[in-house]
Amino acid sequence: MKKDRKRLIAAAMGKIPCDLTVKNVQFVNVFTGEIYPAEVDVIDGWVARVRYPEEPQELESKETVDGEGHYLIPGFLDAHVHIESSMMIPEQFGRAVVPWGTATVCTDPHEIANVLGIDGVKFMLENGRKSLLRQFVLAPSCVPAVPGLEYSGAEFGAEEIGGILDMDGVVGIAEIMDYVGVYSGSERMYDITEKGLEKRTFLQGHAPLLMGKELSAYAAAGIESDHESETAEEIREKLRRGMHINLRASSLVNHMDQLAEGIRQIPYHDFISVCTDDVHAGDLLTLGHVNKVVRYGIEHGMDPVDVIRMATLNAAREYGFKDLGALAPGYAADMQLVKTLDGGRPERVWIGGKLAAEKGAYVGADREEPLSFPNTMNVGWIQSAEDFSLTVEHTENGMVPVNVIVPLDASNVLRKVERQDLPVRDHRVCLDGREDLAFVCVCNRHGRKNKTVAVIQNFGLKEGAVGTTVSHDSHNVVMVYRKEEDALALLRELERTGGGLCVVRDGKVTGSVALPVAGLMSVKSCSEVAREFEEYRKAFYQVCGEETPLLSCAIMSLTALPGIVVTDCGLVDGEKQEFVDVIANGTNLW
Amino acid sequence: MKKDRKRLIAAAMGKIPCDLTVKNVQFVNVFTGEIYPAEVDVIDGWVARVRYPEEPQELESKETVDGEGHYLIPGFLDAHVHIESSMMIPEQFGRAVVPWGTATVCTDPHEIANVLGIDGVKFMLENGRKSLLRQFVLAPSCVPAVPGLEYSGAEFGAEEIGGILDMDGVVGIAEIMDYVGVYSGSERMYDITEKGLEKRTFLQGHAPLLMGKELSAYAAAGIESDHESETAEEIREKLRRGMHINLRASSLVNHMDQLAEGIRQIPYHDFISVCTDDVHAGDLLTLGHVNKVVRYGIEHGMDPVDVIRMATLNAAREYGFKDLGALAPGYAADMQLVKTLDGGRPERVWIGGKLAAEKGAYVGADREEPLSFPNTMNVGWIQSAEDFSLTVEHTENGMVPVNVIVPLDASNVLRKVERQDLPVRDHRVCLDGREDLAFVCVCNRHGRKNKTVAVIQNFGLKEGAVGTTVSHDSHNVVMVYRKEEDALALLRELERTGGGLCVVRDGKVTGSVALPVAGLMSVKSCSEVAREFEEYRKAFYQVCGEETPLLSCAIMSLTALPGIVVTDCGLVDGEKQEFVDVIANGTNLW
Repeated sequence: MKKDRKRLIAAAMGKIPCDLTVKNVQFVNVFTGEIYPAEVDVIDGWVARVRYPEEPQELESKETVDGEGHYLIPGFLDAHVHIESSMMIPEQFGRAVVPWGTATVCTDPHEIANVLGIDGVKFMLENGRKSLLRQFVLAPSCVPAVPGLEYSGAEFGAEEIGGILDMDGVVGIAEIMDYVGVYSGSERMYDITEKGLEKRTFLQGHAPLLMGKELSAYAAAGIESDHESETAEEIREKLRRGMHINLRASSLVNHMDQLAEGIRQIPYHDFISVCTDDVHAGDLLTLGHVNKVVRYGIEHGMDPVDVIRMATLNAAREYGFKDLGALAPGYAADMQLVKTLDGGRPERVWIGGKLAAEKGAYVGADREEPLSFPNTMNVGWIQSAEDFSLTVEHTENGMVPVNVIVPLDASNVLRKVERQDLPVRDHRVCLDGREDLAFVCVCNRHGRKNKTVAVIQNFGLKEGAVGTTVSHDSHNVVMVYRKEEDALALLRELERTGGGLCVVRDGKVTGSVALPVAGLMSVKSCSEVAREFEEYRKAFYQVCGEETPLLSCAIMSLTALPGIVVTDCGLVDGEKQEFVDVIANGTNLW
Repeated sequence: MKKDRKRLIAAAMGKIPCDLTVKNVQFVNVFTGEIYPAEVDVIDGWVARVRYPEEPQELESKETVDGEGHYLIPGFLDAHVHIESSMMIPEQFGRAVVPWGTATVCTDPHEIANVLGIDGVKFMLENGRKSLLRQFVLAPSCVPAVPGLEYSGAEFGAEEIGGILDMDGVVGIAEIMDYVGVYSGSERMYDITEKGLEKRTFLQGHAPLLMGKELSAYAAAGIESDHESETAEEIREKLRRGMHINLRASSLVNHMDQLAEGIRQIPYHDFISVCTDDVHAGDLLTLGHVNKVVRYGIEHGMDPVDVIRMATLNAAREYGFKDLGALAPGYAADMQLVKTLDGGRPERVWIGGKLAAEKGAYVGADREEPLSFPNTMNVGWIQSAEDFSLTVEHTENGMVPVNVIVPLDASNVLRKVERQDLPVRDHRVCLDGREDLAFVCVCNRHGRKNKTVAVIQNFGLKEGAVGTTVSHDSHNVVMVYRKEEDALALLRELERTGGGLCVVRDGKVTGSVALPVAGLMSVKSCSEVAREFEEYRKAFYQVCGEETPLLSCAIMSLTALPGIVVTDCGLVDGEKQEFVDVIANGTNLW
């Protein structure tokens, strides 16, 4: 982003012609909150000058665009997003979000880093550069999320974080999720945050429900932001401690009503920005991206210009970007022409002065060049259906007490264990006669021959098998099945596709989304991914009841959840952060 | 300012006792604009936690102070100030401003740099460290102000600026006054600003009355702020271009009425901070420092918390200070206890958690240790009264046409030249019979044998001589006199004191302020300097009419003025930036 200041100054002075002028617009000035008629002169991708219509232009620009009296606002900046959640690679993600007015994203490659380590971070950086979208990357702070309870494909300490921070395009440390580690003084989190402070970079937070002295300690550690607030009180407590608030509306959570209420109570909004966190391809097609958060804010009574300011200038200041998030001399010419100030789809989008989208269509050819990425499906060590049985060495036939995973509540997300006596035949636990039960298997795909088989109740699986390589945070393979043969067929399909989402019925694959990039991302376009995902969804609900969340498998291993989860190492009590036996009599089989 | 984050986190968690708790206060939260009861816990000079009164304190602090229900606000930050203008050295300046609630100053050592070069900058840094006041320094950008029109004691190019930026405690490039150089593309200003951008530091502006394309070019150059606005329109035009506005009320100018009006028109104030620029010792004694600007703002209708936010958090953000300007976990414990939110004198001031002032008195012993600084009065080459004559080689006796300096208007600040025939006797211009005329002499004191003698009309000098070594920007010696003998006596006194301010009447010194540090600063306290200055003022008005501004001599050489000034090199037309003959027939004598 090196500027030729001499040319920029000369262009502002009217001594050399600009590349582009957008005239006849209602200019939304995010510094002052004013709206007034203006013409914007751009050279080399930067704004040289914003003129009032009555101010003469000394030299005609190479191109002049008539804004037809529409509003001109800065391109949006997403303060926190995991591109992997869209199941698209960065360049495809760019194609999907730019038409909605997003010009810049600050992404946390936490998912791919757990699979491919530093190579994964590099992939995101390099592939991101193929996009018109400005893609900055933050160094994932918690790889793996909880060391010792699961095995991912990488382990980042302060040294690795430091190395990533030195890479071009890396602008901070991503959401520091181990807030317990931070406030309780863990060496690992201390070393990581100190590394960031030493390099004077941005420390992004993640502090759901944190309050009181713990929140103070978290802020005192130098962590600057949070995007997990769901209530007005959370916003207030974090703002009072000087933290930046990222208002979030993702494909998974949306509490914009509460957040808007929290903002109404505070006169100053300059520490408030917006983010999308996780967005699915289908939502990107229909609902939008950052503009969606802006729209929700306006729908909940926030002032349009104020929300636009949050989605542009405030986000840029949070990161310390001095030339993004506004349209003024020396700032990047990231602009949107919009008919109304309501978070709707822009008529045109320019990024760095280049036309990047028009009437919802990305400008530029589809991707063609071959993409190279490693295979991450190291599961060849599982050879037979028997590997998916829950075996009991000490009992050949009879009954054994099993710690069955059961739902904590109707949401079917949080779970606990319950001791149930189950029949054993030929050393194997049988589910015969118990339609409410299924096996769950988590097997390592990162080079270790680790797997856990357990029993789950009321998952909602009626027949066949469902499974995925997208399973937070280590992204091992999670499979739920009644028959071991179905599980094997499912694993072989995931191996064939390089990872992804899969449904098997009667031993045959009925739904499959190939995510060959780290088992997390497709190389296909947003509409293709959305279509494939929709087909997968249909297949999923052929074998599962409608009470089963579609992403159940993806969070089956999430050790951050306050309940029982399954990792490649065993059953884990997420709250206590310790293991629980699968067979209840103490003979742990993993 | 390295923090022990482990201790800070442990203190926030209540695991180790804090050093200080200030309880029973109405806490002004500058992030949210709220005021609520709180207790503030401090360790190692940093805020560990701000508790609500109902939140328990796990371990008692070593010291607890009862705030008696007063307001607790952050210490003020002066965004732009020349300490030299107070005629005090940094440690004495600190003593003077801390009792008014100032905790941090960002100073431009432009004056001393013009005399002592980089050694002068180092002196300000080192002497500043002897103060409880946090003193940051900016690299002076325009040393000398206008190369070629005068000779100062130093010349800073990009290399020198870069060296200063690398010094500990230097936080930016100071007011880039050569805005014409910036927008017209001068190589010198380009190299200096690029050096700052390369080092990712703050570029402070100075752009009086700049508008239109010139202001856009100035902003496009990367310059981030301005403190010269005097009207609502100036504020608006600069804010629209993304510049930070420093509201200024100095000892010389105060347009807070206009500025407050400008701010009323803009809903967002987060790009607005305050500064004092130049403050005299007398004003520091009676009117205050940053608090004075705050008070003026409130008097002109601004919201008290809003102005306090400008004088604290906004100023810190302008500089990118992440732990100054607010009271929150991890922030410096720079605090003021004030009875009312009106810019009045605080009851107590803490800086870095240490009590720094109480009821207007600085806490700490007076300065005692000897101070070392070089002599800067290199004027021994002027030996006789004849050196102060305006000599004309080509005319021994008769009349010669002289370009007499005459006032442009009643303010007696801006001047032009007017050709007047004056008598010459024995090759010397005589003022006999012209009570309205005086001689003005500017002589170099930085190692060059340069001097200019000219004639000035209606300066207001009735008899004797007045003179000073404080003469912006090169700080050569400026003297105004009717008799050459008086000028010599004056110069010898300035040589004796190491520089300063002086009045001579009937060949005898009647007023003298010694400013031995670079001929700019006293080593004495604020009250002593104010007293000496007052005595000087009285002596000045014994020889000058009351229409003569006290600081006339100090701006006699200021080449930035749009009129005729006198430098050691000759008469200069400040607007055209070119020389004008003293003797009008073209024979220039300098």
